[in-house]
Amino acid sequence: MILFNSDYTEGAHPKIMQRLMETNLEQTVGYGEDEYCETARDAIRKACDAPEADVHFLVGGTQANFTVISSALRSFQGVLCADSGHINVHETGAVEATGHKVLALPGTDGKINAKQVKEAFELHWKDDAHEHIVQPKMVYISHPTELGTLYTKAELEALHDVCQECGLYLYLDGARMGYGLAAPGTDVTLADVARYCDVFYIGGTKVGALFGEAVVICNPLLKPDFRYCIKQHGGMLAKGRLLGLQFLELFKDGLYYEISKHAIDMAMLLKDGLTKKGYTFFKESVTNQQFIILDDTKLEEITKKYGVTYQERYDESRSVIRLCTSWATKEEDVKAFLEDM
Amino acid sequence: MILFNSDYTEGAHPKIMQRLMETNLEQTVGYGEDEYCETARDAIRKACDAPEADVHFLVGGTQANFTVISSALRSFQGVLCADSGHINVHETGAVEATGHKVLALPGTDGKINAKQVKEAFELHWKDDAHEHIVQPKMVYISHPTELGTLYTKAELEALHDVCQECGLYLYLDGARMGYGLAAPGTDVTLADVARYCDVFYIGGTKVGALFGEAVVICNPLLKPDFRYCIKQHGGMLAKGRLLGLQFLELFKDGLYYEISKHAIDMAMLLKDGLTKKGYTFFKESVTNQQFIILDDTKLEEITKKYGVTYQERYDESRSVIRLCTSWATKEEDVKAFLEDM
Amino acid sequence: MILFNSDYTEGAHPKIMQRLMETNLEQTVGYGEDEYCETARDAIRKACDAPEADVHFLVGGTQANFTVISSALRSFQGVLCADSGHINVHETGAVEATGHKVLALPGTDGKINAKQVKEAFELHWKDDAHEHIVQPKMVYISHPTELGTLYTKAELEALHDVCQECGLYLYLDGARMGYGLAAPGTDVTLADVARYCDVFYIGGTKVGALFGEAVVICNPLLKPDFRYCIKQHGGMLAKGRLLGLQFLELFKDGLYYEISKHAIDMAMLLKDGLTKKGYTFFKESVTNQQFIILDDTKLEEITKKYGVTYQERYDESRSVIRLCTSWATKEEDVKAFLEDM
Amino acid sequence: MILFNSDYTEGAHPKIMQRLMETNLEQTVGYGEDEYCETARDAIRKACDAPEADVHFLVGGTQANFTVISSALRSFQGVLCADSGHINVHETGAVEATGHKVLALPGTDGKINAKQVKEAFELHWKDDAHEHIVQPKMVYISHPTELGTLYTKAELEALHDVCQECGLYLYLDGARMGYGLAAPGTDVTLADVARYCDVFYIGGTKVGALFGEAVVICNPLLKPDFRYCIKQHGGMLAKGRLLGLQFLELFKDGLYYEISKHAIDMAMLLKDGLTKKGYTFFKESVTNQQFIILDDTKLEEITKKYGVTYQERYDESRSVIRLCTSWATKEEDVKAFLEDM
Repeated sequence: MILFNSDYTEGAHPKIMQRLMETNLEQTVGYGEDEYCETARDAIRKACDAPEADVHFLVGGTQANFTVISSALRSFQGVLCADSGHINVHETGAVEATGHKVLALPGTDGKINAKQVKEAFELHWKDDAHEHIVQPKMVYISHPTELGTLYTKAELEALHDVCQECGLYLYLDGARMGYGLAAPGTDVTLADVARYCDVFYIGGTKVGALFGEAVVICNPLLKPDFRYCIKQHGGMLAKGRLLGLQFLELFKDGLYYEISKHAIDMAMLLKDGLTKKGYTFFKESVTNQQFIILDDTKLEEITKKYGVTYQERYDESRSVIRLCTSWATKEEDVKAFLEDM
Repeated sequence: MILFNSDYTEGAHPKIMQRLMETNLEQTVGYGEDEYCETARDAIRKACDAPEADVHFLVGGTQANFTVISSALRSFQGVLCADSGHINVHETGAVEATGHKVLALPGTDGKINAKQVKEAFELHWKDDAHEHIVQPKMVYISHPTELGTLYTKAELEALHDVCQECGLYLYLDGARMGYGLAAPGTDVTLADVARYCDVFYIGGTKVGALFGEAVVICNPLLKPDFRYCIKQHGGMLAKGRLLGLQFLELFKDGLYYEISKHAIDMAMLLKDGLTKKGYTFFKESVTNQQFIILDDTKLEEITKKYGVTYQERYDESRSVIRLCTSWATKEEDVKAFLEDM
Repeated sequence: MILFNSDYTEGAHPKIMQRLMETNLEQTVGYGEDEYCETARDAIRKACDAPEADVHFLVGGTQANFTVISSALRSFQGVLCADSGHINVHETGAVEATGHKVLALPGTDGKINAKQVKEAFELHWKDDAHEHIVQPKMVYISHPTELGTLYTKAELEALHDVCQECGLYLYLDGARMGYGLAAPGTDVTLADVARYCDVFYIGGTKVGALFGEAVVICNPLLKPDFRYCIKQHGGMLAKGRLLGLQFLELFKDGLYYEISKHAIDMAMLLKDGLTKKGYTFFKESVTNQQFIILDDTKLEEITKKYGVTYQERYDESRSVIRLCTSWATKEEDVKAFLEDM
Repeated sequence: MILFNSDYTEGAHPKIMQRLMETNLEQTVGYGEDEYCETARDAIRKACDAPEADVHFLVGGTQANFTVISSALRSFQGVLCADSGHINVHETGAVEATGHKVLALPGTDGKINAKQVKEAFELHWKDDAHEHIVQPKMVYISHPTELGTLYTKAELEALHDVCQECGLYLYLDGARMGYGLAAPGTDVTLADVARYCDVFYIGGTKVGALFGEAVVICNPLLKPDFRYCIKQHGGMLAKGRLLGLQFLELFKDGLYYEISKHAIDMAMLLKDGLTKKGYTFFKESVTNQQFIILDDTKLEEITKKYGVTYQERYDESRSVIRLCTSWATKEEDVKAFLEDM
């Protein structure tokens, strides 16, 4: 079986494994206060052009999301997001488990825009009974989104501006950040993300690391005591240096960008091949997730050899499936798949 | 000013006040363990034809809702409800504050149906990644709904059946129960509610009491230790007898039905009068809430003399407003209002 | 049976009942935004000599406690209190249910002192691993305490000073405030409480009202959006004017002090009588709760005619019981009790 | 610097690293549903002699603790534990953040006994107002404890019996389980732990793994839907096989016991050496944590070359420090340390 299910089917990039091996028997202090973590923080601050940012390493994405969100909000405040947002559908109500309502807005290709945010904000505050309604205080977006789409720089800037105007925090979930930065045609850089967002995370789990996400806090209001929140929510790794070492390697000599580029190259190879073969795409995507519409008979056939993610039923005889490439995808596997399609 | 804003603009029915006065200096034990509460529980069990039910008195509706819901669910379970449901929009995220996601379904006139519940249930369980998604475990409905509409007996039965089939709890919010039971054309009785629901509450606040709601638990699985939940969530009134006394009076000699009937008579007077005058209704309602579409200029004029609830903008020059009658509405006030319209 | 169990065995002071009757059929807006509430807020601000304070009315004490505490703290912060504190032992973990740890300190006669607070604060911050420990951020005291004891003005001032120094909030639970203010020998006034505390509540339930507590917020940091917290936690009474009316009456012409004084007079009558008869007191108390040590045989005999609260076992043949007086206690009942003892 | 601070100063046992390297580019499905996890679960069930147990892998100990505890309890239930228990003092209120009170009992050398549990249970239920008090429903112990001490088989059995009798769950935190099982003189085996506990976890983080804890659920009542709880609380690792692979290696050919034995040998070398040199121990410990009382001047000198954990002040001129050995401790380092002492 060759798996295109997801971007976390393999372990870590060999350079990371190498580094973990080399440092394995070194002794360091725990909980992210070692030298490797410190250096990795510096590397990330530099990559983000955000010298004042706080950087924290957490083990996984769901953990990062609810830790950031619950740390920023008061009990009666909620977070606006697209209805397809990961926190709204695929985290078992982790945000609600910390007491906060996810305020879903209808997404367009997985995205929400500044106008929607403004309207939601105004709708709340002009209601005489606003104290009876969850107060919107944060905007959650993902980049790339769950549907593989990307925000443009102008869209990000508009979201930033409306958040500033309304006193909302802008939070970006970058579980697949690398694949967004490396996508063809994007005008968004890591420095843009850092400039426009109050807080965001750079995903490692899906982009070359064994596990780990780097939360970057730009807004000083969100910095105090964040480590308490990490610990309280079970996200403080005893051997924190494992996270530092991985991000150190990812942000050394542009490895993060390089392996992300590879994933995109593989995705475009897949996309072009499928297009040529006449397959229909459910959503236009320039990132590592490709969504196609497939006859159920073809789907049954293909899944004997390849792992794919079943997304949803399209019509009576066709389904939508998701194919993922990653830093680890082999060109030969993509070609074999295209052959079999 | 004459207020048609809501059904809680006055105090309590004079008979209730009388009873509170008469018993005021009696001594009783606290926390709902007095004789008045016991007798009131019996009266409610009898009115519901539910001799085995547990009855608990709580101060308010939001409190009743989140206490019942959080008591019944495990942390990762959520409650299905119409998108317009009170718990989804007007309780400041009280259910989420106890850790549970409200799973909103598109409502039709404030209602959801058995088919929607079945589909939501199946959608969850057939997903391979269902552990990443909040598990539906309860269905919340209100009767009357937020839009003044009512379930039919057949609809309630269908919801009951699908809940039984799927292992879901059916919970009915009866903040305005009396006005539903007294509505023209309804075939739903209190005994039906008790037969079809696992748990529900009979509202006192909006139907003649100073305050208070009677939670009725029919499903034995939901009974154990409910008093701990009430106390923990701040709903256990020290002078519990105040609640018992009020419900005792409401369920003596049919007072609850009689005063509910009065509210409906007033609502129908209002409805007929407005219909004759050519006003357009936003929703057809047979209960004590009437929703009409009004020119903004007319609205401005009328609100100089009458209190109404602004519901939403209808179009550029018209708004939707809500008018409420209650046990306390005076016929002369309705007539004066009709005159001025 | 004559009950000395608690200070909430009767309804409300007749003047309050009278006022509720008179205003019963008036129409007002809901949720505490009516004129009666406004006027009552002014009366309380005046009584507290705190013209800038925010005043909110809640239904009960447990509700007031967890609403205030959870509103003030971030998720990883806790509240210091005496091990005998009401929030630590008699609220079914209501504070923990909002996510916050109660940090119990050994109390002396139900009280904690400035030195203990300082030490707890320093112990936390000098620990290298303080992020692994709940951060103390608030101090909870009650006045009178659960054991009927009182803080002196100097003690309150010292607590205030240490809280200021350490950046902690001082919160005072005044469920029985009136009985503290009216106690012989106390040098603490309501204005002192307002001066020394960041937030406190004045209890109505146990001091003449049917129900209701007035939360007074002096520290501007704790004021924003408190009404959202009340609503989210089920504490926002629909007919809010019921609370306003009761406190209006209590703070008109000194009724609150007058009826508190009566309770203390009755308590002193009881205390003196029991002392003369040779009974031993478990704790020296100058307020409305008196704790005596009683032979089990005597206890069994006396409880045939009188209600008392069993506090704890003293030794093999003796128990500690609590006797409460209140605004409603009749002199003849105290005398009869003394007679029978 | 040579670190004796903790048992998580190095990476993982070389055999584990080797295995991670070998399998690094294999593709597997995520979230612990791969073959490695399945095989590791079988190996653990076998090692525990618990063929029916459910086994789940989580990333860390705090996460394991609050996920297990919150999964088992209803909102008003609490967990009994020693006052020195990790959940009570060193997890930033993680259990409280899920809404549950930790009910601390005075520990003796970090342990609690069956008699204390029984008393706490009875105290709760005989109180007339038990609904006002958190209901004890689980007992938390750690083995070894925070102070390096161990339960005997008889003590575990007694705790088990009292829990059965009272309807409480017995939960054992085995963060350092291996070091307990390998300690001289212990009569407790892994099978005993599985027989006496309803649920427990076998620690990997401190015993040879990079990270990871294996939660073993023996009581069928605690099994349903536990994976939802893991996901909701951020503990479900995307690349779950990393956890499976590590535990697979640990439980192959007795590696877990072998490396634990080494840590104990090193601890005994340290203990004997220090005893011979006349040092005083704060607590008698037969496991990998040794607590000694040290002059502050000696402490200052020794910490120039060695890392130790400052535990607490002993008296004006002396402190208590903790020294840890682990699977990775080098004999030469222990000898050098003894030399310098």
